[in-house]
Amino acid sequence: MNESPPVRPVPVSGFPEWLPEIRMVEQKWLDLIRSGFERYGFCSIETPSVEPLSVLTAKGETSNEVYALRRLQEDAGDTGDSRIGLHFDLTVPFARYTAQHFNELVFPFKRYQIQRVWRGERAQDGRFREFTQCDIDVINVDHLPAYFDAELPRVIHEILTGLNLPAWTIDINNRKVLQGFYEGLGIDDPSAVIRAVDKLDKVGPEGVAKILSDEVGLSARTVDSCLALARTRGTGSAVVEDVKALGVTSELLTEGLGELSHVLDSLDDLPAGSVVADLSIARGLDYYTGTVYEGKFVDWPNYGSICSGGRYENLAGSFIRRRLPGVGMSIGLTRIFAKLLAEGLLETTAKCPSDVLVVVPRDERRNEAEATAARLRGRGLNVELYHQADKVAKQVRYASRKGIPFAWFPPFEEGAAHEVKNLATGEQLASDPTTWLPAPR
Amino acid sequence: MNESPPVRPVPVSGFPEWLPEIRMVEQKWLDLIRSGFERYGFCSIETPSVEPLSVLTAKGETSNEVYALRRLQEDAGDTGDSRIGLHFDLTVPFARYTAQHFNELVFPFKRYQIQRVWRGERAQDGRFREFTQCDIDVINVDHLPAYFDAELPRVIHEILTGLNLPAWTIDINNRKVLQGFYEGLGIDDPSAVIRAVDKLDKVGPEGVAKILSDEVGLSARTVDSCLALARTRGTGSAVVEDVKALGVTSELLTEGLGELSHVLDSLDDLPAGSVVADLSIARGLDYYTGTVYEGKFVDWPNYGSICSGGRYENLAGSFIRRRLPGVGMSIGLTRIFAKLLAEGLLETTAKCPSDVLVVVPRDERRNEAEATAARLRGRGLNVELYHQADKVAKQVRYASRKGIPFAWFPPFEEGAAHEVKNLATGEQLASDPTTWLPAPR
Repeated sequence: MNESPPVRPVPVSGFPEWLPEIRMVEQKWLDLIRSGFERYGFCSIETPSVEPLSVLTAKGETSNEVYALRRLQEDAGDTGDSRIGLHFDLTVPFARYTAQHFNELVFPFKRYQIQRVWRGERAQDGRFREFTQCDIDVINVDHLPAYFDAELPRVIHEILTGLNLPAWTIDINNRKVLQGFYEGLGIDDPSAVIRAVDKLDKVGPEGVAKILSDEVGLSARTVDSCLALARTRGTGSAVVEDVKALGVTSELLTEGLGELSHVLDSLDDLPAGSVVADLSIARGLDYYTGTVYEGKFVDWPNYGSICSGGRYENLAGSFIRRRLPGVGMSIGLTRIFAKLLAEGLLETTAKCPSDVLVVVPRDERRNEAEATAARLRGRGLNVELYHQADKVAKQVRYASRKGIPFAWFPPFEEGAAHEVKNLATGEQLASDPTTWLPAPR
Repeated sequence: MNESPPVRPVPVSGFPEWLPEIRMVEQKWLDLIRSGFERYGFCSIETPSVEPLSVLTAKGETSNEVYALRRLQEDAGDTGDSRIGLHFDLTVPFARYTAQHFNELVFPFKRYQIQRVWRGERAQDGRFREFTQCDIDVINVDHLPAYFDAELPRVIHEILTGLNLPAWTIDINNRKVLQGFYEGLGIDDPSAVIRAVDKLDKVGPEGVAKILSDEVGLSARTVDSCLALARTRGTGSAVVEDVKALGVTSELLTEGLGELSHVLDSLDDLPAGSVVADLSIARGLDYYTGTVYEGKFVDWPNYGSICSGGRYENLAGSFIRRRLPGVGMSIGLTRIFAKLLAEGLLETTAKCPSDVLVVVPRDERRNEAEATAARLRGRGLNVELYHQADKVAKQVRYASRKGIPFAWFPPFEEGAAHEVKNLATGEQLASDPTTWLPAPR
């Protein structure tokens, strides 16, 4: 035994970890997300967990959330480790990757990336310091067809549907509509209005009105128009008519409404109400320039977005002198998963992936038990062989406690039959290890 | 366009990343490793990338390789972030996890863990600062049956075989044999000898002899015996006889030889020469107490180990006052993968997972193309729909450049047939989207 007092293991706030039965569900989700991305031909990439700080801070915005690395006990000399930090999203690494490998990629480049990201912010409901993001982006040289603005929410919609979540919507808007509308109103600094309207969830319409009049200096009538736009919400191209009815015009607004109705029309086969145009959605990040997306749980409107993204005209511009427009969406896996776990909505079934536990009847029959396990594994089943000839009841109890659905009894005597016990029903039947199959889980 | 000069994206030494076609192969490997672990009933866990520094340094050994985290621009106040660091292996987090969740786990606890680990050491051939390890361990309360000492190398053997690597062996030894042999020789400090013999690969027999005589202070005859043991190598229990023939006896030696021959006997059905007893293997880490494993490429003996592990009597002893013996093995995925890549031995096939590219013949037929893609996807195929009605040759070239094996032509006219072109052979056949299947890749 270790003589020194144990180091008490305590969870580190904001860094979640799950028990095996929860992890089994998370793995199933990850498999569904991955196959959903691959179904549409997106390829996987992974980037290092770290980037040079110059890359992470190229946009400047979130630099104070970055975790930089330093070597323990590195008093002398700078080996370069002090200039790297953990990535805080997958978009910046993707932009850097695209620029760095530009000549070796085929465009349009459709990639997915499922990795952990880190943010040194205060851990709270729905916010973690380490969490898994599932991103898809399409990036192209010079021009990116509008087709992809509709393909991405379709992929995400299909995946979220497969995850069987409580009711959610994907809200869609277009930054050109906002910008064009505000320009049409004669507003000098549309960005200031976008930033204000982006706070609608937090401060409500009155709060936004106050910012618009006090800080941006808009007239009461202009403020009313801005709020009228932000209230506009609905499915299909009817929404476009609602915006037009507000009586504001500009070239950019017309262009934005065209793009928005193209996306909505392309998605009109999806279940009603699952994709909604919401003219209040802005997505604060400065790099979005057209379509923007934001997914929310219907019953938890104040919980963070479950997916989000948008189109950007030139994301990799910090890293390469080529115009590389893109459109991307991200599923906040950990955020969704942790919420369902906290709400008791995740159904766990087993603590391990085994289909069968093969019982060792007695030591002299161990070879038969081993051969049975090998035969079942050879047929693609996940099989645990019990490690010693304990009492059969003890071996079966082990299987039950782990949630293994079947216990396999090799013949106790030469020439006797194999039997399989269904641990859920208690039914025990003679079975052939060369043909038996468990019911699909 | 971005006006400021681009930040030139350069690779960070020791942090590998792959192009999509390489990543496809890595994913296939990861899938094979995962299913290999699950085939034997091991469950997945993941732990946070970070642990408290008190946990990481509980054993003291590798603390100067640890990357600690610090917040950028965090001048004031300690939020706790300065006391966490990235894990340098998966064994310490696993031990901490087992201790922390002790009451919620079912023992023997068989887990696998496939995650990145970080070591702040100099990057060189086969050594990375960020790399992926694939670990399996079994841990139990009080006593762990010898059965698992043989199950683990069997699992790893099966997986490595499936990866189709250049020739390799898994070498096996038992620390009790070493310890017991040295005790039988009357050596006061067997650990010093183990540490010296562990350097055999690096300094050769003469180098080890010099350390043993100059630093450990052994007589020439005793040194000869130590080297004779270290030269002993072979398959099956013949090796045990070779050791006995050296004429040294001790209780611990007998116990160790018993354990070693148990493991070798249990694995005697594996292909000859793939699992070898090698009495020079010590594995430097202090916590191994019985069986030890080390896998190497046959043709690159100086390249690092491709898998390794061993038995430890009380790994979680730093974290809990229970005796928790375990046995574990780890596949050095990145190390193996990077070596094969560097040697030109990785065969890539495609840059994306798509089975088919659906061509858009002309804009008026887009709906037909979309419906075809949806139908194929519904049948489980990975399908890319080309984004616009470009010239057909351009669309097909896109598929070829991405390594997509088939191009699908929906009817160019109402009532015409669907056709599929095999881009490898050039063959083009009328096909039915409700029944067509690609040849398995």
